[in-house]
Amino acid sequence: MSTPIKAIDWKNEKLVLLDQTLLPVEESYITIETIQALITAIQRLVVRGAPVLGVAGAYGVVIALDQAAQENWTPAQLEQALDDLRDARPTAVNLAWAVEKIRKDIARGRDFILASAHELALEDLRSCIGMGNNGADWLVRELGARSLTLLTHCNTGSLATTGTGTALGVIREMHTRGFVKEVYADESRPLLQGARLTAWELMKSGIPHLIQPDSAAAMAILSGRIDAALIGADRIARNGDSANKIGSLSIALACHEAGIPFLVVAPESSVDRSIETGADITIEIRGDEELTFFKGIQISPIGARTFNPAFDVTPAKYISAVITEIQAYEIAKGETL
Amino acid sequence: MSTPIKAIDWKNEKLVLLDQTLLPVEESYITIETIQALITAIQRLVVRGAPVLGVAGAYGVVIALDQAAQENWTPAQLEQALDDLRDARPTAVNLAWAVEKIRKDIARGRDFILASAHELALEDLRSCIGMGNNGADWLVRELGARSLTLLTHCNTGSLATTGTGTALGVIREMHTRGFVKEVYADESRPLLQGARLTAWELMKSGIPHLIQPDSAAAMAILSGRIDAALIGADRIARNGDSANKIGSLSIALACHEAGIPFLVVAPESSVDRSIETGADITIEIRGDEELTFFKGIQISPIGARTFNPAFDVTPAKYISAVITEIQAYEIAKGETL
Repeated sequence: MSTPIKAIDWKNEKLVLLDQTLLPVEESYITIETIQALITAIQRLVVRGAPVLGVAGAYGVVIALDQAAQENWTPAQLEQALDDLRDARPTAVNLAWAVEKIRKDIARGRDFILASAHELALEDLRSCIGMGNNGADWLVRELGARSLTLLTHCNTGSLATTGTGTALGVIREMHTRGFVKEVYADESRPLLQGARLTAWELMKSGIPHLIQPDSAAAMAILSGRIDAALIGADRIARNGDSANKIGSLSIALACHEAGIPFLVVAPESSVDRSIETGADITIEIRGDEELTFFKGIQISPIGARTFNPAFDVTPAKYISAVITEIQAYEIAKGETL
Repeated sequence: MSTPIKAIDWKNEKLVLLDQTLLPVEESYITIETIQALITAIQRLVVRGAPVLGVAGAYGVVIALDQAAQENWTPAQLEQALDDLRDARPTAVNLAWAVEKIRKDIARGRDFILASAHELALEDLRSCIGMGNNGADWLVRELGARSLTLLTHCNTGSLATTGTGTALGVIREMHTRGFVKEVYADESRPLLQGARLTAWELMKSGIPHLIQPDSAAAMAILSGRIDAALIGADRIARNGDSANKIGSLSIALACHEAGIPFLVVAPESSVDRSIETGADITIEIRGDEELTFFKGIQISPIGARTFNPAFDVTPAKYISAVITEIQAYEIAKGETL
């Protein structure tokens, strides 16, 4: 269907990341050999997207073990490195989840850990297929077997997962079934993952699309141009409240107002059943320069301060359904996770 | 109170425009000597903001008369030039309104027309004072005489008017009264008038502020950080429906949901009583490159198409009040214009 994209790969006993900060202008790969390099890559968003961050975290445990052996770390040093990796980004649950899941088997040896990381990558790939099917089935059931105009935000595709994607995976599946008329892709400021990455993926896959400023989403929705909106999630509470890329909330408000479906698509690993509501989700606030400069070019007055939250939390009351690889949770009908 | 900013000036028988595309990095002025140069400057957004576009249109009639005299235009050529000026941007009513208002007196001679343009600039300056007072009075009456956190979008200040501004004029007046705690300024993609121009004006005036991505407005509002939002308008229908910079609509939806005031601030010249509702407002759709490139740097895949509306229309049902230099129209209480 499309050129395979590998955002993350384990090659010659090393982790290889596609540098997503340079896309779509440059397709460049970085080989990661230390835990510090991996944490920096995660924080610089060389690799981003909740599911693939989980996979990166899993391989990160292998990297830490290799580095510990080479550099004769104490057990305490190793634990500290794994804590730092787990906490590299505070909002996405997948990273912390994967690091904790994998590290508890450290006693079973490096090769066992590597096999677990491979297994986790494969699970992610399989879960994309499940989400794609469950989401497409939901849309066809609710809106009929017809060609739809779909809106999405940020990047939730092959660059954010090891498979076809979460929200974008559903869009890909709908396209395969012949039900996508056009996709409106929010550019997703400040880092423009929509304009750069989603547009790149959609173009590679031959899916018709338009890039729009995030601020145009409400107009696109309320003017009747959109049939449904689909987003990913970095963390979902038991009641359905969902943390996702900043801007998701205003799309949800507009869909609610327009009476069209608003779907959150994420793997079960993004569901955090230890928290009841979104009030318990820590939101990462990022630095000023993401907004005040663009690739070294000054935008704002020198010294300008910003409010730059990476995520917002969409309350369950604006969400039609949460789609995972297991099922569609009918949030609007009162179902919880 | 602050360094005076002149976005537009008539100097030595020529029109001088501050090039707003270069702010805040460079403070550079352009002298306009032909109607073609003025139309280009308007379309490139060297000069922008509904009220000041009216003033630019008025001086444009003088420029056209001077050029007609120098180049021996036929009356038909002059009429065509004025039609082109009037239609340079389709959404803002002020430009067309000013050109039509001024040109009907052409028979009275060039100096009469120039005096009319000066008078119109002065009226705009005075109307800013009226809007500032009416808006601040409204906020104090509704929210009490206390320090507020205010959200605004795009640029509606001294760069958009010949005075203190429309929405930003109200914020300036609130600041003078000691009632501004902080201002959240939306960056206002794609041309970043908020991050560039509003931040520059607020800094010059010593008003505390934060720049945020447009997509963060809903979170800022629904998380309780904001007491009221204020925007300008490019055209207002009789029922209160208001066209303004793309993104205004989603701020209105969030304010409506949060139950906080959403004010539209504009001079009476932005009210178009010839249209009943916003359905009659033509929305300017701008080109792809505003989104796919930033100052010559490629953002999106080559060939990417966009949905890039310059404005959206906020339905009256989400507007608390429309503030003009004459009065506050209580839209939420059923008042019309």
